[in-house]
Amino acid sequence: MGGEKKKQALTDIGSLGEFGLIDHLTKGIKIRHPETLKGVGDDAAVIDQGDHVSILTKDLLIEGVHFDMVYTPLKHLGYKAIAVNLSDVYAMNGEPRQVFAGLAISTRYSLEALEELYAGMLLACDKYQVDFAGGDTTTSPSGLMISITAVGKAKREEVAYRSGAKPNDLLFVSGNLGAAYCGQLVLQREKQAFKANPQVQPDISKYPYVIERQLKPEPRRDIIRMLRDAGVKPTAMIDISDGLASEILHICKQSGTGAMIYEEKIPVDQRMAQVAHEFNIDPTTCALSGGEDYELLFTISQKDYDKVKDMTAIHPIGHITEAVQGENLFTSSGQLVKLTAQGWDPLKGETGSKE
Amino acid sequence: MGGEKKKQALTDIGSLGEFGLIDHLTKGIKIRHPETLKGVGDDAAVIDQGDHVSILTKDLLIEGVHFDMVYTPLKHLGYKAIAVNLSDVYAMNGEPRQVFAGLAISTRYSLEALEELYAGMLLACDKYQVDFAGGDTTTSPSGLMISITAVGKAKREEVAYRSGAKPNDLLFVSGNLGAAYCGQLVLQREKQAFKANPQVQPDISKYPYVIERQLKPEPRRDIIRMLRDAGVKPTAMIDISDGLASEILHICKQSGTGAMIYEEKIPVDQRMAQVAHEFNIDPTTCALSGGEDYELLFTISQKDYDKVKDMTAIHPIGHITEAVQGENLFTSSGQLVKLTAQGWDPLKGETGSKE
Repeated sequence: MGGEKKKQALTDIGSLGEFGLIDHLTKGIKIRHPETLKGVGDDAAVIDQGDHVSILTKDLLIEGVHFDMVYTPLKHLGYKAIAVNLSDVYAMNGEPRQVFAGLAISTRYSLEALEELYAGMLLACDKYQVDFAGGDTTTSPSGLMISITAVGKAKREEVAYRSGAKPNDLLFVSGNLGAAYCGQLVLQREKQAFKANPQVQPDISKYPYVIERQLKPEPRRDIIRMLRDAGVKPTAMIDISDGLASEILHICKQSGTGAMIYEEKIPVDQRMAQVAHEFNIDPTTCALSGGEDYELLFTISQKDYDKVKDMTAIHPIGHITEAVQGENLFTSSGQLVKLTAQGWDPLKGETGSKE
Repeated sequence: MGGEKKKQALTDIGSLGEFGLIDHLTKGIKIRHPETLKGVGDDAAVIDQGDHVSILTKDLLIEGVHFDMVYTPLKHLGYKAIAVNLSDVYAMNGEPRQVFAGLAISTRYSLEALEELYAGMLLACDKYQVDFAGGDTTTSPSGLMISITAVGKAKREEVAYRSGAKPNDLLFVSGNLGAAYCGQLVLQREKQAFKANPQVQPDISKYPYVIERQLKPEPRRDIIRMLRDAGVKPTAMIDISDGLASEILHICKQSGTGAMIYEEKIPVDQRMAQVAHEFNIDPTTCALSGGEDYELLFTISQKDYDKVKDMTAIHPIGHITEAVQGENLFTSSGQLVKLTAQGWDPLKGETGSKE
């Protein structure tokens, strides 16, 4: 008993950094069953089912870490909880089919609040045609925790891992980046204003686009299907949950490559750039490190370029290089900058990350 | 903003009770994909994979609700977190193959503490030959939360649902019941003694059996395999996480039947009965309502009785009746008592339950 008293003499979990911690804890893991085609280290696990594969992913959303009840409507929260897991399945080039939800709730939530949360989850299930297939509900001593598991399906040869990028492959992103982060900046500012003077109602009507990107992200099913219809299979793919820089490093690490991207090619929306300037932040920084956009980052073989060059929803931002060249950003002012992961620092407690 | 201010006018989640709450929230759910053979309402979901089925289950374990760090060694906790999910897969008559773990950790945990937790999870994976195939790690503003998803495999015709029991089927339980609950009583008493006087080290050496049943439950793979080897498929099956009474009600509700069980047939261990008496609790009450034993409750057709009658690890406790007869306990003193679920009351915050 009282085993925590010794903590001071032990190693702080923050000292390893996010990826160090995960690598350290999972290094002893061995896979026993040949059907487990992919375990830790991608957006999702892949299980061989004979004539097809299952794709499995899970995520935890914790109140006070991933969402703030002051400015997160519960219906949006339920929708987002499902959406971000579906995004992981799409990022493997699969189609999600079932979701499972585990909820831990404190008794300060009313039945009506839970109904809103469920309504949001079921709305996302409806839109993306997945079955809400189970889970569990329990009490929480404080706050709300949501654990979602999503299960998808794909042909074995269709699965896009993080590890398949090759030098000279082209790097693409869908949509635009940085907006979800800017939405969070606005919401946090309004929260502070509200705390300072509760009589002042927040004015978020000026920023509908970035706030919607933060509160109600949409997984890019459309991109996956568009590429499939065009006969293009990404050589590597990942969804952008932690920011573009971090995801590029994931692909390069798993693929054993480097990458070169061009600042002027990074797609940013004018409405995001306006908010970024209001906060005195460089829009490129929002795109590289903001996270939560749930766009797709993927690589394709150069031979497929003609098939995608007229698609306006995706944007080439650079190419894959040999590993020795590292991961670099060529800035609009002509400088070459090394890409660094912002990642997740457990001591800061900002955001989560997949193993 | 400030949406929680209205709470007083809203419906308390405790007012519906556990099963009322879950029924209420999940009643709008429709299944779209024919491959989703079973969604909410059993120990696990079942997904058709063509020549076999996948069995999926998930559970949340929350510090302060499901475990108390004062008396739960982290290695045991990791082991138990995996074990209870494997138990759900066995309760569907499947073999678990992969597990996924989501952890939310506060920074007061050291790296060494997390290593212990992982060591326990991997030990259970090793013993039950399942692959640790992924998950995610994030921060928690307070305490430790563990979300496990287990995936199993079975032939489609082998799956044992809660809904398959028929009148005159025989009811069996494996092992013995009530010990895990008595283990918790001992641990809680020692915690109180420790809080009253930290100089007094807890004396739990007198109760190794019940404490082990609480801290390190073993899922009953042996029972599943023994029945399979004997050519017996349970008509219905469930694992005992909430207590025998509650699980019998689940089977009866899903099967549209009643049940009659006999107090004198309920298997209790002498070491459990001794602790129960020390706490002035009836051992039968511990067995009926204690929970966390992770034994199996199952029904078999009478024609299979000869195949199982010499198995010492399982015990007939009664039989299934028509629904109109209800669920009853025939006590050792000759009284007929209606079985009632203790279930989970969100206001008490005692334990969780599967949807």
